[in-house]
Amino acid sequence: MTDRQIRVQLLLTGNEIMSGDTVDSNSAVIAQRLGELAIGVYRKVTVGDDAVLLQTELASMVGTSDLVIVNGGLGPTVDDLTAEVLAIVAGVPLEEHPVAVAHLQTWCTRRNLQLNAANLKQAILPKGAAIVDNPTGSAMGFTMLLGDCHVICTPGVPSELAAMLDLIVEDLAKRLPHAPDRNILRLQTFGLGESTAQQIISDSVDNWPPEVQLGFRAGAPQMEIKLSVQHGSALPLQQHCRDQLAALFGDHIIGEGDTLLAERVLQLLREQGASLSTAESCTGGLIASMLTRIPGASDGFRAGFVTYSNAIKTAVLGVQESTLEEHGAVSEAVVREMARGAMRHSGADYAIAVSGIAGPDGGTPDKPVGTVWLAWGNHSTLRTHNLHWPVERTLFQTMIAAAGLDMLRRMLLGIDEEPVYFSQRAAATPQG
Amino acid sequence: MTDRQIRVQLLLTGNEIMSGDTVDSNSAVIAQRLGELAIGVYRKVTVGDDAVLLQTELASMVGTSDLVIVNGGLGPTVDDLTAEVLAIVAGVPLEEHPVAVAHLQTWCTRRNLQLNAANLKQAILPKGAAIVDNPTGSAMGFTMLLGDCHVICTPGVPSELAAMLDLIVEDLAKRLPHAPDRNILRLQTFGLGESTAQQIISDSVDNWPPEVQLGFRAGAPQMEIKLSVQHGSALPLQQHCRDQLAALFGDHIIGEGDTLLAERVLQLLREQGASLSTAESCTGGLIASMLTRIPGASDGFRAGFVTYSNAIKTAVLGVQESTLEEHGAVSEAVVREMARGAMRHSGADYAIAVSGIAGPDGGTPDKPVGTVWLAWGNHSTLRTHNLHWPVERTLFQTMIAAAGLDMLRRMLLGIDEEPVYFSQRAAATPQG
Repeated sequence: MTDRQIRVQLLLTGNEIMSGDTVDSNSAVIAQRLGELAIGVYRKVTVGDDAVLLQTELASMVGTSDLVIVNGGLGPTVDDLTAEVLAIVAGVPLEEHPVAVAHLQTWCTRRNLQLNAANLKQAILPKGAAIVDNPTGSAMGFTMLLGDCHVICTPGVPSELAAMLDLIVEDLAKRLPHAPDRNILRLQTFGLGESTAQQIISDSVDNWPPEVQLGFRAGAPQMEIKLSVQHGSALPLQQHCRDQLAALFGDHIIGEGDTLLAERVLQLLREQGASLSTAESCTGGLIASMLTRIPGASDGFRAGFVTYSNAIKTAVLGVQESTLEEHGAVSEAVVREMARGAMRHSGADYAIAVSGIAGPDGGTPDKPVGTVWLAWGNHSTLRTHNLHWPVERTLFQTMIAAAGLDMLRRMLLGIDEEPVYFSQRAAATPQG
Repeated sequence: MTDRQIRVQLLLTGNEIMSGDTVDSNSAVIAQRLGELAIGVYRKVTVGDDAVLLQTELASMVGTSDLVIVNGGLGPTVDDLTAEVLAIVAGVPLEEHPVAVAHLQTWCTRRNLQLNAANLKQAILPKGAAIVDNPTGSAMGFTMLLGDCHVICTPGVPSELAAMLDLIVEDLAKRLPHAPDRNILRLQTFGLGESTAQQIISDSVDNWPPEVQLGFRAGAPQMEIKLSVQHGSALPLQQHCRDQLAALFGDHIIGEGDTLLAERVLQLLREQGASLSTAESCTGGLIASMLTRIPGASDGFRAGFVTYSNAIKTAVLGVQESTLEEHGAVSEAVVREMARGAMRHSGADYAIAVSGIAGPDGGTPDKPVGTVWLAWGNHSTLRTHNLHWPVERTLFQTMIAAAGLDMLRRMLLGIDEEPVYFSQRAAATPQG
């Protein structure tokens, strides 16, 4: 292998992947690990456990690649065909590999198992193949050079693949003479759709430099904007594009890298030595759960109250029965009292409160499914807003929980501008 | 299309899939939906957003398939190439489709958006293509007959794909003259690993009928066991295997189909006219969130208390300061008082309480990361158990939240047997 861009293909095998019983996450893991070395995968093919199909694909890939990674088909059962197929494509016989037998023997002994014929099949490999150690499982990996193409066969069990990739990436890094200088800058945003972001960029930026590749990854709740450059010489251009995006979307950008909304909110609370409690109706504990997924959440997160029914809003948070009767549970007055109750009962400095109609039932003409009131703030400044976000229940809960966190983030940062989603998701009948 | 087995291939496009930034779950969804019609996918190819690669793959697939489903590349941005590539392979020009323009206009109007040039690109489709409606998003699907091969182009956004697949499957079902009689029976389990389940079956069942295909899908927290038969004549055998599994795993089976643990718990509460509150420390609101994801959760779910710190356990749930000092927050005595506090403050009949060390910090030699105490029950019978489940923080929270729900499920059903995970995940130093 030389330091020119090497051509890499993946060949995945498994009936459970073809049937959709299993979602293939292995190829993403392989691509990410190769990405660390600035090696891109340009094509991947997946077929079931069929020797003829596998042989056709592998032979074709070997002729058009520098590196082929095969994943799956290393197990002990009859439908594990990878070794057999590689031997046919390489034109060599299968034989027992002493290193693989010793590995299987150790593996079985550690587990107090007898080495049986099914397991021993995993040591029958193409003649001339080199072993790749499997630190966690019974199936050895193996690699062969076919012409100019390296073929590496890896196990389908995700944890075994991950451990083996450490070894493979280390080995590849040694073969590649020059350290890669690809650089990816990722910005995490909330409240922007992909097409909105794309449109704002094409309306506002005339001369986007071709050296900086722009990418979007829409997720729920966050959207990632990615700026990739292939050479270190383009880093100033990447920084320039980053500044342009910051000017266009500034207050919608949560942070760089993998930053999560909840993580950013906890960080801001920590910087201010402040604490937060949550009072949730329609989001049902999701805001608390998003916060406590973050290690060290206890620094800033004080308490969470999930108050689904009116009676519980009154009993637990002290929401007045008269307020509930007069305004209904989904109202500005109620989320205000929920937020104040959460602060009072927990001693927290800040609160986020949410009450809405997640559906599919419970909507009315006045307050259709997707209607929600949010309150956020502290004892002196408590803000509220009304949104209409009529999507499927779980997505609604995700987006509204994130909107609550986002509004507190904006407040902690002193951002006064309204987010784009306030106008895009305005409630049908403005209520005050 | 005739009723012989039709040859189906999938072509997936997206740089984010090739780089591993996104795990492709769409192809699994497509395969599962086609599986309902007993249509298998025999090969899938994934490439980045590259017109030349896409064109090569599509042209090759059209020559060797009856049906090609293309997924991705329908968006408004410049790297969305599917329409352009299909036009080239079909040898037709691109043109604006009035139906697609009207769809985009409606879509934008509903969202209070202006139809812009970026969006309008989604209406420029190959001449002669038929539109496939997108009930949820802006990107229309489209289909063409190229020779004998149907090509259907679908959007990459998972929720839009799902809605469109309803239409596609319905249409395919009409074209296939004979209704398939494949039948899949799915059992949802909690607390069994795939290899444990497999081992128990092979140790206990001598004569598994070959007509019944056994499959597993390990997820977090649930594992699905699948029994597939290809013909109606095998339905009694399928039922027989189902009974055998029920005998082997009985109390680990939550339900059939898509049943979720939280859904089953809510159903049992509803049947008994009972209500539940939660008191969560290390799971941080996740149990409440799992319950409130289910529509109609308010029938059985009363209130959730997320009490992270000792001070809040005392202030909100009335846990005695002396109990916390004497036993520590992660102790049997504390989860008992948390559960009682949750019932008392909310008036619920049942409670689940959890206190543990999710990590990565906070472990001690006595109580390492992964240690957790669970309490579940009602005013008269409150049970507790101690587990050690040392996995990554988010997975720990997921599995422990599910274990809490599972223990209540078992209690509501009157199951006295201990689940397999009690012995597999026993705390290192038994504490009483």
